[in-house]
Amino acid sequence: MLDLVSLRRDFHRHPEVGFTEFRTASKVVEILTSLGYDVIYGQEAIDGDSRRGLPSEAALEAAYERALRDGANPAIVEKMRGGYTAVIGVKKGKAPGPTVAFRFDMDALPVLESTEQDHFPQANGFRSHYEGNMHACAHDGHTTIGLGLAEVLAAGDFSGTLKLIFQPAEEGVRGAYAIVEKGHLDDVDYIFCNHLGVNVPLGEVHGGSYGFLATTKMMAHFYGVSSHAGASPEQGKNALLGAATALLNIHAIPRFSTGDTRINVGVLEGGTAANIIPAYAKMVVETRSITEEVNAEVENRVRNIIAHSAAMHELDYKIEVVGGAIPINYDVEMAELALEEAKQVEGFHSFKHGAYNSMGSEDASFMIKRVQDRGGKGTYMAIGTDIPAPHHHPKFDIQEEILPRSVALLNRIARRLLT
Amino acid sequence: MLDLVSLRRDFHRHPEVGFTEFRTASKVVEILTSLGYDVIYGQEAIDGDSRRGLPSEAALEAAYERALRDGANPAIVEKMRGGYTAVIGVKKGKAPGPTVAFRFDMDALPVLESTEQDHFPQANGFRSHYEGNMHACAHDGHTTIGLGLAEVLAAGDFSGTLKLIFQPAEEGVRGAYAIVEKGHLDDVDYIFCNHLGVNVPLGEVHGGSYGFLATTKMMAHFYGVSSHAGASPEQGKNALLGAATALLNIHAIPRFSTGDTRINVGVLEGGTAANIIPAYAKMVVETRSITEEVNAEVENRVRNIIAHSAAMHELDYKIEVVGGAIPINYDVEMAELALEEAKQVEGFHSFKHGAYNSMGSEDASFMIKRVQDRGGKGTYMAIGTDIPAPHHHPKFDIQEEILPRSVALLNRIARRLLT
Amino acid sequence: MLDLVSLRRDFHRHPEVGFTEFRTASKVVEILTSLGYDVIYGQEAIDGDSRRGLPSEAALEAAYERALRDGANPAIVEKMRGGYTAVIGVKKGKAPGPTVAFRFDMDALPVLESTEQDHFPQANGFRSHYEGNMHACAHDGHTTIGLGLAEVLAAGDFSGTLKLIFQPAEEGVRGAYAIVEKGHLDDVDYIFCNHLGVNVPLGEVHGGSYGFLATTKMMAHFYGVSSHAGASPEQGKNALLGAATALLNIHAIPRFSTGDTRINVGVLEGGTAANIIPAYAKMVVETRSITEEVNAEVENRVRNIIAHSAAMHELDYKIEVVGGAIPINYDVEMAELALEEAKQVEGFHSFKHGAYNSMGSEDASFMIKRVQDRGGKGTYMAIGTDIPAPHHHPKFDIQEEILPRSVALLNRIARRLLT
Amino acid sequence: MLDLVSLRRDFHRHPEVGFTEFRTASKVVEILTSLGYDVIYGQEAIDGDSRRGLPSEAALEAAYERALRDGANPAIVEKMRGGYTAVIGVKKGKAPGPTVAFRFDMDALPVLESTEQDHFPQANGFRSHYEGNMHACAHDGHTTIGLGLAEVLAAGDFSGTLKLIFQPAEEGVRGAYAIVEKGHLDDVDYIFCNHLGVNVPLGEVHGGSYGFLATTKMMAHFYGVSSHAGASPEQGKNALLGAATALLNIHAIPRFSTGDTRINVGVLEGGTAANIIPAYAKMVVETRSITEEVNAEVENRVRNIIAHSAAMHELDYKIEVVGGAIPINYDVEMAELALEEAKQVEGFHSFKHGAYNSMGSEDASFMIKRVQDRGGKGTYMAIGTDIPAPHHHPKFDIQEEILPRSVALLNRIARRLLT
Repeated sequence: MLDLVSLRRDFHRHPEVGFTEFRTASKVVEILTSLGYDVIYGQEAIDGDSRRGLPSEAALEAAYERALRDGANPAIVEKMRGGYTAVIGVKKGKAPGPTVAFRFDMDALPVLESTEQDHFPQANGFRSHYEGNMHACAHDGHTTIGLGLAEVLAAGDFSGTLKLIFQPAEEGVRGAYAIVEKGHLDDVDYIFCNHLGVNVPLGEVHGGSYGFLATTKMMAHFYGVSSHAGASPEQGKNALLGAATALLNIHAIPRFSTGDTRINVGVLEGGTAANIIPAYAKMVVETRSITEEVNAEVENRVRNIIAHSAAMHELDYKIEVVGGAIPINYDVEMAELALEEAKQVEGFHSFKHGAYNSMGSEDASFMIKRVQDRGGKGTYMAIGTDIPAPHHHPKFDIQEEILPRSVALLNRIARRLLT
Repeated sequence: MLDLVSLRRDFHRHPEVGFTEFRTASKVVEILTSLGYDVIYGQEAIDGDSRRGLPSEAALEAAYERALRDGANPAIVEKMRGGYTAVIGVKKGKAPGPTVAFRFDMDALPVLESTEQDHFPQANGFRSHYEGNMHACAHDGHTTIGLGLAEVLAAGDFSGTLKLIFQPAEEGVRGAYAIVEKGHLDDVDYIFCNHLGVNVPLGEVHGGSYGFLATTKMMAHFYGVSSHAGASPEQGKNALLGAATALLNIHAIPRFSTGDTRINVGVLEGGTAANIIPAYAKMVVETRSITEEVNAEVENRVRNIIAHSAAMHELDYKIEVVGGAIPINYDVEMAELALEEAKQVEGFHSFKHGAYNSMGSEDASFMIKRVQDRGGKGTYMAIGTDIPAPHHHPKFDIQEEILPRSVALLNRIARRLLT
Repeated sequence: MLDLVSLRRDFHRHPEVGFTEFRTASKVVEILTSLGYDVIYGQEAIDGDSRRGLPSEAALEAAYERALRDGANPAIVEKMRGGYTAVIGVKKGKAPGPTVAFRFDMDALPVLESTEQDHFPQANGFRSHYEGNMHACAHDGHTTIGLGLAEVLAAGDFSGTLKLIFQPAEEGVRGAYAIVEKGHLDDVDYIFCNHLGVNVPLGEVHGGSYGFLATTKMMAHFYGVSSHAGASPEQGKNALLGAATALLNIHAIPRFSTGDTRINVGVLEGGTAANIIPAYAKMVVETRSITEEVNAEVENRVRNIIAHSAAMHELDYKIEVVGGAIPINYDVEMAELALEEAKQVEGFHSFKHGAYNSMGSEDASFMIKRVQDRGGKGTYMAIGTDIPAPHHHPKFDIQEEILPRSVALLNRIARRLLT
Repeated sequence: MLDLVSLRRDFHRHPEVGFTEFRTASKVVEILTSLGYDVIYGQEAIDGDSRRGLPSEAALEAAYERALRDGANPAIVEKMRGGYTAVIGVKKGKAPGPTVAFRFDMDALPVLESTEQDHFPQANGFRSHYEGNMHACAHDGHTTIGLGLAEVLAAGDFSGTLKLIFQPAEEGVRGAYAIVEKGHLDDVDYIFCNHLGVNVPLGEVHGGSYGFLATTKMMAHFYGVSSHAGASPEQGKNALLGAATALLNIHAIPRFSTGDTRINVGVLEGGTAANIIPAYAKMVVETRSITEEVNAEVENRVRNIIAHSAAMHELDYKIEVVGGAIPINYDVEMAELALEEAKQVEGFHSFKHGAYNSMGSEDASFMIKRVQDRGGKGTYMAIGTDIPAPHHHPKFDIQEEILPRSVALLNRIARRLLT
């Protein structure tokens, strides 16, 4: 029998950011395998080219080496090398039936965890061993719940197929799309995604969540030519002039009467020295909207502005999509089914069919959309836990009693549908 | 015998701005004809498509009607209708010889002439009759000198060919190029251009002038789409956003180590009302440089910035060249010849071979260049006159005694070469 | 008995834009006086300093002269000279009771009216006599209804006080505030404002309207110093650089999570010539938001951006408020009362308590707000008419049968409350 | 007898960037001391607060530790800790007389030295041991020459006082000013500064150099407030909007008719993540001009633009001067004296009194200016060496035969004046 608390604390101690979840994912593979699941991972689980915002090769390698040092199974992680850190566990039931999927995200955040004694992980000896990284968004809990669910359904005493999807790089909305593109959602009839916390108190469950924004995260590179700013300024092609022009004009994209929007240039970096015409600049831009169509239009305008801001100063440019998500339209039927089951689980006492989720964007949206596009149904649930500090905060923490309770809830949902 | 002072005062009373010199030019045609010159004017004198910064059709017609009212010869001005206001008088000598040309500019400025009694034209009853226009740059004097020169050389008692070019639209450097393009400079062996005043005192003559800047004047139009700023801002294509972006980036064109430059966006106008996304804007831009090559490069950068500022906001655009000039490299030989003759004319007592001319730009430069390109020689002279106020000022005036003296000087130069 | 159709057509023939309604207002004064009303007009009706976006003195005088030529009563309009074109008619009933006000706007638009034969006013000989101005927003109808209402209530056979407010300059939301500031709403218990058309079909009445945006219209002036762009660019203080910087940064004001916003720089004009550093520029800016607070914050940011864009280039600046409005929160009780009465008037068959009004902003909002702030109640009604072309269009027109019907409705409302 | 080549190669192997010349300076102190000079160093040699562009404390400490590991004298470097790396050697002659100073700069560049075999230091085993740093501007040679000069004048067999100034941080024009501010130039009668290379071939000597530009290097910090770009963009104060606005407007500072200028924003960095309104940005700006006055005016405009770009977006800001220099007006008398002596040294065969120096800016300018301001004289010489690659290039190198020859030249100059 898995010790969920120990498992969660082990994950918490070893927080790995997006696409570097080598140790975490290798543990997931080991456990799923030991429970008799068919396990898909590495390049079979995730489409390499569809991954967004991949870390540098050096960062991937450093994390890989660290995972090996800290107990990752070498034979397993070798297949994940280069950032192929998705894992899918499949269990076929004893009779034919629908395919039911659950999504769990595994990545941590680049947050320096608190060392204060009133921070529970610090006081109880499971603070992050990876200085500067932290599980500050409950994904350690999510992964643990996924493994707990795997255990209680390991016997395959149901009709149909269970699919447990462990996703890398949810932060920055970068990983889900590449699993979808590999086709792993194409045969799913029902999908349930969930999040602990998100301003929902312990004991409360939301069957569905709305308010997720369509979003695109882009990195733009401006390539110019350096020259001596005193001796021959006219020979330079000034990357910062192009980038600053883009920045101002991106912010000047108009409001849309067809849907609320958001635009931000979150990062701009360029140039090397006072006396050199800057030859390179990069910019990170984010667009959001309440609808996919408006977000796409805003994204197009950003792209056009960048293209012409660059051309105006005779610069080359490149735009990479480094993240993205779409809104979630949860199926009311699934939300109600989830709540019906939640009412049967001890410890839950407050129930909402649908509620606003203030977390901004989620790339589970791509998974739910794919399932819906092919005729299936899905929802995005919230499972409450009191938290001592907001998500992404150095003192964020969850209440561990929610782990078995969540397993119980998801188990009921799975068995209800796998009949 | 022409009364130069009366002639000058008549021109001064009827100041006509660039390409509307209908009355002035018709007087020039009449006098040249009466003196027995072959006179070329209208569409034969100037290339229509090469004229720059032409006034609106309405403005041209209004000036045309005014000229008719004020005594212009109808048969003559009819051939100038639409802004064909150049006149060239040709006199063949009694024997073969070189072709010698003189350039005189005829246009006035949109300046409101002073009504103060210490302003000589006001006190002596020849202040501008055309309210808002004024001969504030001595072109009334230049035209008069040209006609005086025509008279003293009318007998054709020389060897070679004399060519007197009366140019419209020197202000804004808009008219000379179109005369050059018509081919009238192609057979010229020597050309002399000159200016009264330009900070040179009475009695002083400069044989050559340097410091003229290459320049291009452009008008850019930005065409967008209007929409209601409250109800549907996203449906607009904002011409002012494009224009403002262009303005800032044009000013940000770098200094050139290869030659001093100047850049100005002199006018920007766009939009109609607070609650309408602006659908149209126009911009007047000027570039200058000490060399033609650097000016051309700066002009190219301006064009590129405008093109991409427009495209960035999905605007169409158009750029018109509304004026231009190149530097003048006068021939030292001509400058020296001019000074030698000046020393023979009573009233001149100070002589400089070459001197800096602070007037900025001159499109006589195109004429001198064409002559030089075909093996001829030329210079740009300055003939001093004390002035009570700077050029382009409401109280600008010249000393009329310089008129016959200038005729005498140019007559000597012509006869020296026409042998 | 007033001939409403003739009256409306007379107003339509003489469309006067905001603060130049000399002829219209003098007719209103004459009729109200003849009906026995106490008539307040000129400087007693409107606070001079609170008027926004006043035309130039020359424009005011020209309109004044025109009104005199076209039959305005000289003794009356003399008191309106300079743009004091508000009129208030007061009738005290036979017994004490509440004060009930109705607002009617009188101004026309700078729109060139259609000359096509299928345009009803053209076909029937009452097209605008003032070329370039047009009653394209039904205010000719509003004024007519106001006078019709005055007539049917002229006997004063009610309890309380009737106040008919004829407002100038509703277009651009410029006139209402100055009437409020004069105190004329301070004693009002109930106020009804209404608009014909606004996408409501003939036969339909809206008791209340929502969706009006708070708005501020500003004109900013940037004062710099000119200099020769070639000879001494560094001596200029470039007004267009300041204005263009302001324009881009105003558009870059962020979205507000606390309320939808709109921002527009509708006009930018500056500079005089290619070779002069621009010494002056002006800019027209509009802010809007669904709440007054957010609009005020956006306005503050616009002011701050203008101030520092100017200071950045060592410019002086001035910001004038040239228009403004606030949202309208109509009183449901009044809307219901209005509908109850509408149901008693023949010709109305469709009724909505409250409906979205897409017209953007209305400065009747200041009047309703003042009444509500002092404990009274009010509403903004819409009275349907089919229209052949949208508001502000050269072929806009109303159905004249709505005039007596509207008088009947407002008469019922007045009598219902004046008891 | 010092082995100049070994000494230069030792310095070349240990290249220390500005204000971290701990090892280099400690060797200089040791040698000067051993030669009997009075040696001033540490806080007595340089004014702490006047140093510009000081590295971070961490960088200073790391370099300090490295110097200790690599043989720096602990007792000496301890006095230099924190970046007090200037050294001044003073030798009083046997009789009274003038004070003659020579300036030598010691710092290296952040350039990665070439590993190619045709690079002489690589082939001969003295390539940089400090990966990423390199003596790519001949300061290793300068320091060596200074010590060689110290040796040949160590006997003090002259009249007057010799002052050898070893300056840190010439690169970025950061160190000289702080030595001047400490007063060490106040008693100097003659000063000679020189540079090897600078496009002057082996065998040629320039007695004076002109063309150095006045320059100011500034670092601007913009301090805003971060907020979630999706949830509450209006709560942020966007540092990048302020910085980008400053960048565009700084580049738009006009040309000056009073002197050629240069402006560059060499670095702009701000923001942390796509979904965070950027709370901080920094910018490195450089101004230059042929005159100190125009450079000061341009610097003032930059400061004003930064101040108001920040205030426009409600940001705080700070501007640090991180470097600067003024033009050099060498004394012709000194240049001629230097050339007379050069003609007596074998190996020199080409001589120019004054020549254009294309290196941009030099903070020896502050030293020469101080000497001149107090009635003394000075010059900036160039001593030729062929170079295989330009200054600051990974394959830059000098010809070592120039070392003794330079010592011989400076020795003759010193003895000529110390009489």
